Amino acid sequence: MAHTRDDVVRTALEVLDVAGLEFFSMRRVAGALEVQPSALYHHVASKQELLALMADSILAEVGVGDDLRATCRAMREAMLSVRDGSDVVATASAFRLGVSGIETDLAARLGDRDAARTLLLYVFGQAQATQMHRQAAAVGIVADDPGLDASFERGLDIVLAGIASAS
Amino acid sequence: MAHTRDDVVRTALEVLDVAGLEFFSMRRVAGALEVQPSALYHHVASKQELLALMADSILAEVGVGDDLRATCRAMREAMLSVRDGSDVVATASAFRLGVSGIETDLAARLGDRDAARTLLLYVFGQAQATQMHRQAAAVGIVADDPGLDASFERGLDIVLAGIASAS
Repeated sequence: MAHTRDDVVRTALEVLDVAGLEFFSMRRVAGALEVQPSALYHHVASKQELLALMADSILAEVGVGDDLRATCRAMREAMLSVRDGSDVVATASAFRLGVSGIETDLAARLGDRDAARTLLLYVFGQAQATQMHRQAAAVGIVADDPGLDASFERGLDIVLAGIASAS
Repeated sequence: MAHTRDDVVRTALEVLDVAGLEFFSMRRVAGALEVQPSALYHHVASKQELLALMADSILAEVGVGDDLRATCRAMREAMLSVRDGSDVVATASAFRLGVSGIETDLAARLGDRDAARTLLLYVFGQAQATQMHRQAAAVGIVADDPGLDASFERGLDIVLAGIASAS
């Protein structure tokens, strides 16, 4: 059966949900599609490219609007809704510095590439810490921390105030 | 031969340098010490605790002083000097929110726990992105990006200005 690139990305996200990023591999995605791993490379050049497409898919519903706080909240929620979603997005972002859609849009809106990067690194990092902590709490390794959402809002206050004062 | 907890942490950092965080395990640390894995648990209760001790060791030389920019630079340099050092520190920090020495010291100095967390999340996230990008560039997966150090300084400008305006 012929697959499209969208099929590959959709299946990759299903594999991520089952295996987590630690055990995510091209081989597992190929297995879920019932094709040889080599067949995947007709659609994506590398695992890095596939992770980038998965990151774009995770953030696909997030639009960069005038309300930067709402944009940041929507990004965080989108990442937290997918297992290891924040790690996928942060990893993809680090590999292709400055060329993801959301970073380009945010840099254009702020007129400042470093300000866009700073805001994204904070949002990604806070989402990663939240997700890691929640996943660990879910299996009883650490106690739940109900303050992580409020702490995110306070961090956004700080970074957005810093961006306003720098522009 | 009897080992101390310091021996375990030192050996764990040597294993990290060889294996990277992806393949780091209690089993490998035990192998390097020529003991059974069960013997490690006399010294550390879990892999999480060992990662926390490794994170403390990576940041051991960093003091939180009046010059917050210098403190943040020193943290980043310390993390970048150890393979996957930023991932170890960020992971340990997410597991034990608020109880690492450097976070406690920074929160006391700023009089604001959320401000301390925001600054640390930015520094950890930027160090992770830098380290991931450099390690990928070293094996030719991505092009080198000489702008990552300057971008870090601009991000510090923004976050420190935001902290100053929030206090």
